[in-house]
Amino acid sequence: MKLHGYFRSSASYRVRIALNLKGLSADHLPHHLRKGEQRDPAYLAINPQGLVPTLQDDRGAILTQSLAIIEWLEETHPEPPLLPKDPLRRAHIRAFAMALACDTHPVQNLKVLARLRDLGLPDEQVTGWAAWANREGLAACETLVAREPGPFCFGATPTMADLSLVPQLANARRFGVDLSAFPRLLKAETAAKNIKAFADAAPERQPDAE
Amino acid sequence: MKLHGYFRSSASYRVRIALNLKGLSADHLPHHLRKGEQRDPAYLAINPQGLVPTLQDDRGAILTQSLAIIEWLEETHPEPPLLPKDPLRRAHIRAFAMALACDTHPVQNLKVLARLRDLGLPDEQVTGWAAWANREGLAACETLVAREPGPFCFGATPTMADLSLVPQLANARRFGVDLSAFPRLLKAETAAKNIKAFADAAPERQPDAE
Repeated sequence: MKLHGYFRSSASYRVRIALNLKGLSADHLPHHLRKGEQRDPAYLAINPQGLVPTLQDDRGAILTQSLAIIEWLEETHPEPPLLPKDPLRRAHIRAFAMALACDTHPVQNLKVLARLRDLGLPDEQVTGWAAWANREGLAACETLVAREPGPFCFGATPTMADLSLVPQLANARRFGVDLSAFPRLLKAETAAKNIKAFADAAPERQPDAE
Repeated sequence: MKLHGYFRSSASYRVRIALNLKGLSADHLPHHLRKGEQRDPAYLAINPQGLVPTLQDDRGAILTQSLAIIEWLEETHPEPPLLPKDPLRRAHIRAFAMALACDTHPVQNLKVLARLRDLGLPDEQVTGWAAWANREGLAACETLVAREPGPFCFGATPTMADLSLVPQLANARRFGVDLSAFPRLLKAETAAKNIKAFADAAPERQPDAE
């Protein structure tokens, strides 16, 4: 398989974790987002959104959108599971992941921040925007798992929630968010980072890391 | 079941369509987003993001995030299916839905637009922002289904893609987006609107419509 991504893209990071947890390998094809490589016509032909990641499977099939890719990995490579069997529990884990993947990350991605700059906002306000989006999403997630004993977000093993959380926390730190208000999320992050699948997927461990 | 929503919320609209397609009924509990009712402490206790929709099932279980609710409906009430059986096809449909539910709608929702106003942007730029987000997302989606014969987004019956598309097109129109560049999406919308489940879910048909 081939994974089109970018070392610092949190959506790519989610898929890297999922591949590692499933014991699957992929060739990493970096697209430098800050240089605009994701808008190259050859890349747009496989991902018309011009976003990373894109996964190409062994037969050349193209998959986009990190959570859709992860659901596909779950369906085609069910072990170890990233979602439990109980439908309500699955719904809660997906909702946590989507609170980050839908309502948090896209509001603070490079494209949105560039647009804010284009509208004339100074860097300080742009970073403030990104920090705000992260705080809002993480605060909701902290509440969603407050009663979960853990150590992971939802139980004793990592799920789709954890592989959405860890990359978002990395973003939040880059934008200067004080994470001390989120002890339950930090507990889950600590548990995750002790797992090789998570550690190997970290941005600084990728071939295109700067 | 109870569905906490708002007539004009496109995320609520998605779930209304899904419930109707599955032949399920729910009591509609409106929360007036423009009046800030979603930030009422009693509502935040069930949905810490302060977003709609929230679904409460017959046993009182709480579900949030529209696509997570729809996946749960699909798992607990499989007929008629909103996703096909083939994993790759499921991934493509989910990716289409997420291009809207992750990368488009959250970038133009009420909360983000209010924040832009708070930063001092004039109304014209705020509406321009919302139109931009809609155009970007819909243009990608048009490409994703360009080779699909239809009439729906992915085949002869509605899927999760269609119930994400129809509400987003309604938003795009409200923000003045010229939809003539998206003929394939409009074809799917026409097919969907001919179905009672979609028609009954329309914002203007809801009890809280203004």
